[in-house]
Amino acid sequence: MESIAKREYVSPAVIRRLPRYYRFLGTLLGRGVTRISSREIAEMMGLTASQIRQDLNCFGGFGQQGYGYNVEVLRAEIGRILGLDKGFRAILVGAGNMGKAISNYVDFANKGFNLIAIFDKDPAKIGTRVAGLTIKSTEEITDFCLTHKPDVAVLTLPLQATKGMLDILVAAGVTGFWNFTHYDILYDYPHCAVESVFLEDSLMTLSYLVNDRRESE
Amino acid sequence: MESIAKREYVSPAVIRRLPRYYRFLGTLLGRGVTRISSREIAEMMGLTASQIRQDLNCFGGFGQQGYGYNVEVLRAEIGRILGLDKGFRAILVGAGNMGKAISNYVDFANKGFNLIAIFDKDPAKIGTRVAGLTIKSTEEITDFCLTHKPDVAVLTLPLQATKGMLDILVAAGVTGFWNFTHYDILYDYPHCAVESVFLEDSLMTLSYLVNDRRESE
Repeated sequence: MESIAKREYVSPAVIRRLPRYYRFLGTLLGRGVTRISSREIAEMMGLTASQIRQDLNCFGGFGQQGYGYNVEVLRAEIGRILGLDKGFRAILVGAGNMGKAISNYVDFANKGFNLIAIFDKDPAKIGTRVAGLTIKSTEEITDFCLTHKPDVAVLTLPLQATKGMLDILVAAGVTGFWNFTHYDILYDYPHCAVESVFLEDSLMTLSYLVNDRRESE
Repeated sequence: MESIAKREYVSPAVIRRLPRYYRFLGTLLGRGVTRISSREIAEMMGLTASQIRQDLNCFGGFGQQGYGYNVEVLRAEIGRILGLDKGFRAILVGAGNMGKAISNYVDFANKGFNLIAIFDKDPAKIGTRVAGLTIKSTEEITDFCLTHKPDVAVLTLPLQATKGMLDILVAAGVTGFWNFTHYDILYDYPHCAVESVFLEDSLMTLSYLVNDRRESE
């Protein structure tokens, strides 16, 4: 097994495919598949074999000519590239419907994160339990961050409250954000690691696709 | 005002930027801005002016040399391109945490959709109310779709239940999906309009970004 010679620059498109590979290899493992060729991965994932070889080459390449890939080893390596073994600490800010759904529905632990606290500013929510955690007051958030040093904050709070909370979190040392608001974090804080989920943009994209399909019928 | 000469092929990257333009122009309108140049849009959105002109040219172009864009007209046109004026009918399948969050949190009505029904198979949920709708049994879903002809189904059900439900929905004439499961709908039904939100892939991407940032420090 070669060691990983990670390249300096990996394109966002490749980075976005890595979780898909990871997920796909997990499904194969669950079915008892131990070995697979790039051609087979390509067919099952709707990509080309050369694209797959290129993607995995970005990180040093793990295949052996004539043998293909060892599913378990490849998945573990991709997991390491993704940092899923790092156990990054996450807090969630905003325990409304979306915050509750994310805390309960997303499998943080198997995706490299340890959800350690949930915050809300609503006194009616503070002290109640969600996803095994007791909701804390956002008034405690600076102290909490200085003490527990979370790597990322999940932002599921209203747009108008986002800028103020962002300033507090960055001042308290948080540099990673899983952003469900439509606030443009990188514009204010370009040094941060930001991954955004813009649900309403996604819905409008679906509207386009449905509309486009109708018009071409 | 030119009429819209929509091109045959619009790249997915352009399509994905349209909701951002729409959202951004809405913010400007809310601030009372009536007119804007492509350079100003570019600066505020972190894109280049020529990219913006190119994007909008894909649909016929609405700018006037020396004047820029009329914010309200441009936003309305992008909304029409996105099909937001069509009032597509949506149903939601799977009223767990995620389904409830999506029904309550996402502003369907302002994003071109009319959420007309929510389904679940759990007898404890059937008959209860979510987002102003009474949850119906999935046993009624075929009849409902044949009668009400929803344009899209929002899938917030467990992965293992997805394939079976998808077959039922497609057989009942549904051809659009907002997919929150990790099921690959287009692999089975390439003719459908599908927009997927892969939350756990997004979280793994964040893990990569946080990890990458650490390693480069």
